[in-house]
Amino acid sequence: MNAVDALIDSLPPAPANPGGQPGRVTLAGAGPGDPDLLTVKAARAITQAQTVLYDALVSEQVLDLLPQSAQRVFVGKRASRHSLPQDDICTLMVRLAQRGQPLLRLKGGDPYIFGRGGEEVQALAAAGIPYEVIPGISAAQTAAASTGMALTHRDHAQMLVLATGHLRHSSESGHPPHLDLDWPALVRPGQTVVIYMGVGALPELCRQLIAHGLPPTHPAAIVESASLPGERCTPGTLATLPGLALAAGVKPPAIILVGDVVGLGRVGNDPVR
Amino acid sequence: MNAVDALIDSLPPAPANPGGQPGRVTLAGAGPGDPDLLTVKAARAITQAQTVLYDALVSEQVLDLLPQSAQRVFVGKRASRHSLPQDDICTLMVRLAQRGQPLLRLKGGDPYIFGRGGEEVQALAAAGIPYEVIPGISAAQTAAASTGMALTHRDHAQMLVLATGHLRHSSESGHPPHLDLDWPALVRPGQTVVIYMGVGALPELCRQLIAHGLPPTHPAAIVESASLPGERCTPGTLATLPGLALAAGVKPPAIILVGDVVGLGRVGNDPVR
Repeated sequence: MNAVDALIDSLPPAPANPGGQPGRVTLAGAGPGDPDLLTVKAARAITQAQTVLYDALVSEQVLDLLPQSAQRVFVGKRASRHSLPQDDICTLMVRLAQRGQPLLRLKGGDPYIFGRGGEEVQALAAAGIPYEVIPGISAAQTAAASTGMALTHRDHAQMLVLATGHLRHSSESGHPPHLDLDWPALVRPGQTVVIYMGVGALPELCRQLIAHGLPPTHPAAIVESASLPGERCTPGTLATLPGLALAAGVKPPAIILVGDVVGLGRVGNDPVR
Repeated sequence: MNAVDALIDSLPPAPANPGGQPGRVTLAGAGPGDPDLLTVKAARAITQAQTVLYDALVSEQVLDLLPQSAQRVFVGKRASRHSLPQDDICTLMVRLAQRGQPLLRLKGGDPYIFGRGGEEVQALAAAGIPYEVIPGISAAQTAAASTGMALTHRDHAQMLVLATGHLRHSSESGHPPHLDLDWPALVRPGQTVVIYMGVGALPELCRQLIAHGLPPTHPAAIVESASLPGERCTPGTLATLPGLALAAGVKPPAIILVGDVVGLGRVGNDPVR
């Protein structure tokens, strides 16, 4: 039995669905973690959910809003440990909807900002299943709001660039995992760069940005658990941040901000620099 | 009397503030317009507001959530018509807070994504006024959610770039207004580009992107009034979009999406292409 069959078998049997109509899927961004930062629409969908598929980045505080009767299906993945491959998540979602039940698909942050929401919506559309997408506050937005690092402050940045720092594992043995990013784009002047999921790749990220032309003194910071009780901001420069993050024991989920706006930030009551 | 004095004189006198403590300012993103897309926290701040400063991009539907007793101060600006310069907005905010009243500063979208929130927070911090920033759903997120243009779909985009299409007016007479953007950055491969406030600059934007190397057939779309009843998506290519937008009578507020993810979108029940 494959993983999808096993998960479906672990759920209570579907109610009768004589018309054979598929259930509607609500694909909602669960935001950064603080339930107060859910959209009103997502909060309503959560408090009315019957069956929910959720990721590792959906916080306990958000899950606490689910009705006690809701069926919870964890399909999360964290960095290198995939609990369910993306294709299986799509298959599971389609098969559950085809049982006729409404389904809530909860994803950390925003479904369309590094959330794989695109693949899931394609699978639903291909299977003729009705769906709706609800946006969510993304980590960059929360980190900016709580630290004061104004992403597009006119004196410092004309553009905002979002990318991911997932390490790619080479198919050739002996080659270490590497970051596959468009470095010339990330070192353009006058922009703020935000790297999602980049904790493991922080040393290579900083090294490559310097190698491609940014000064070692270029401001950079890492913000862990934005909006949650464990929120912490570690500011530095491209040269110092990897060491500071290591010393501080920085852990995912965290995002990295690179650019002059880091200098606008505050840690507690003190300016970053 | 200057504009700030006139606005303050138009308000009821401040209540007694014997301790002289400044009021707390809540700087909240009002999102794209649909009140259901406010964060829970922003919605709560709005329903409890006593005095609110708001922009042109804050929707009527959101303003309808304010208590009837709330003092409303419009400080909006649209494209070339500035009803109050940014410096005056900062001064007004500081002076109202210094009267001791709590203040809600409402901005369309997210305060730190092309929202001038950075300047406002700097003014508050310099004046020793306590404040809090609440993020908001930004137009790119709503446009993606409702059209299906998945901003970072892995098959199409590794990066998401946000910029503004405000036309800059040259100080030299006779020179037409122009777009001051980092064109080499905007034509990198494998990214989705979103241009805020770019309706007036759409023809020059498309022309420059082609001149800097993107093919005329590169997908592009413009989304008006995302999340509001008047929402409309006009898809095309860099070559066709200016003409299509003109023919359709596209009006602000609208955002422009450029990249292969435009091909994932749906207009009504039909794929974009």
